[in-house]
Amino acid sequence: MTHTYQHRVRFRECDPMGIVYHVHYLDWFEVARTEALRELGVSYKSIEAAGTILPVTGLHAKYHLPARYDDEVLVETTCHLSQSGVRIRFEYEVKRKVDNALLVEGSVSLCFFDRGRSRPTPAPQRVIDVLRGESQSP
Amino acid sequence: MTHTYQHRVRFRECDPMGIVYHVHYLDWFEVARTEALRELGVSYKSIEAAGTILPVTGLHAKYHLPARYDDEVLVETTCHLSQSGVRIRFEYEVKRKVDNALLVEGSVSLCFFDRGRSRPTPAPQRVIDVLRGESQSP
Amino acid sequence: MTHTYQHRVRFRECDPMGIVYHVHYLDWFEVARTEALRELGVSYKSIEAAGTILPVTGLHAKYHLPARYDDEVLVETTCHLSQSGVRIRFEYEVKRKVDNALLVEGSVSLCFFDRGRSRPTPAPQRVIDVLRGESQSP
Amino acid sequence: MTHTYQHRVRFRECDPMGIVYHVHYLDWFEVARTEALRELGVSYKSIEAAGTILPVTGLHAKYHLPARYDDEVLVETTCHLSQSGVRIRFEYEVKRKVDNALLVEGSVSLCFFDRGRSRPTPAPQRVIDVLRGESQSP
Repeated sequence: MTHTYQHRVRFRECDPMGIVYHVHYLDWFEVARTEALRELGVSYKSIEAAGTILPVTGLHAKYHLPARYDDEVLVETTCHLSQSGVRIRFEYEVKRKVDNALLVEGSVSLCFFDRGRSRPTPAPQRVIDVLRGESQSP
Repeated sequence: MTHTYQHRVRFRECDPMGIVYHVHYLDWFEVARTEALRELGVSYKSIEAAGTILPVTGLHAKYHLPARYDDEVLVETTCHLSQSGVRIRFEYEVKRKVDNALLVEGSVSLCFFDRGRSRPTPAPQRVIDVLRGESQSP
Repeated sequence: MTHTYQHRVRFRECDPMGIVYHVHYLDWFEVARTEALRELGVSYKSIEAAGTILPVTGLHAKYHLPARYDDEVLVETTCHLSQSGVRIRFEYEVKRKVDNALLVEGSVSLCFFDRGRSRPTPAPQRVIDVLRGESQSP
Repeated sequence: MTHTYQHRVRFRECDPMGIVYHVHYLDWFEVARTEALRELGVSYKSIEAAGTILPVTGLHAKYHLPARYDDEVLVETTCHLSQSGVRIRFEYEVKRKVDNALLVEGSVSLCFFDRGRSRPTPAPQRVIDVLRGESQSP
């Protein structure tokens, strides 16, 4: 399953080279994974309200071509849950909408973490079911 | 009392016009007021740990001249506590270090707020004493 | 004419108080004014491409109620051009979508500035016409 | 050669989990590499003024332990120039000052790029000399 988030590049995201400052792609990644989960019927907010947080454990990004001010870009996201259900990895491709050129590839890994017991924990069962495709989104 | 915070303009703070994006001055304001309070012996973190938070209630800024990449700037801060001790206002002048030119003026107002009782509250007594000059900083 | 920009609060925009950090409202203001102009047929990017930049000269904000993570908010924008056509002021109201509660009021002032001649300049005539309602948007 | 940049965690850098939002470490990386180069007598600003820009081509980060509000952290940076002198990679370790605990590891790769000719180019000779230790910093 691939989720696509569309974004228009903001002035504040561009640097003196006239291109998007490399760090801001990671902001888009956050929106993209939140919306990807929402589309599956999983609300990050409700996971957190139930006492499980999702700290980021790793990320990488590879920059091929720059996005520029006012460009429309597409952030394509796929999501991978680990065997144990404890870790989740989102993989991203950022494309320029006008010609589908690949601008940036990246990934962000997070860990389900029980706040009360201060340790990693499997994702809530419903989240596991949804992410493994064994359950329908509402 | 005036506190001076020195900052060197970062690449990520500059926009395609080659100048500091107007919003980032407000980030410097946060550092400047935190350090101004620390110099008086008041730790924002310890206020918060005691259950009082300090939401921002208002701000303004007037932009005279732009700061540019790698410029060294001075953020001069003064602090004003309201009669009741509930509100605190920080006033700022941002100057270019090399020639002391005034770049930006601004102010940020905050309110002491009791998190448990969900309502405004006077600052802790020790903070009031320090800010009114009736107590020595440690 | 009022333009409405809808936004969903991002995790990265929230601070340890669990509310939107006050500075991020100003990021929304930028998107809101860009989209308000675009709806009128005015592209900020094309203004800039023609050699006129729009530095921010002032801003203010008043915070009434906090927005929280995952809230949907509406940023309502109105736009006011000065007599001379040199200055433009955007006024904002941020409302919580679910109950229309007023969260934040603000304004941002900008100045049309001729990059080549390094001085303030009236807005391009077409922009003046559109903003004064004497021209139809395309 | 290792350069150390010291930073105190700002309120705006912390998220609702009470820890530094993962993206902000990359802001520190920018300051750290700029200051590392400056210490060697290399000003990024002067490289850029001479027509060479340094777009980021890749990055990664691995998060071990969170930094929290008001923590003092040390960002240790080492710098590696490619054989050809075209690419430069900075490697980072972020440590908590109080106990030297390793919080985050990361790297950022950049490419020297000739703006006029729109293509990769070796670093200016002086920069190569300095980074290879064949020249003294001023």
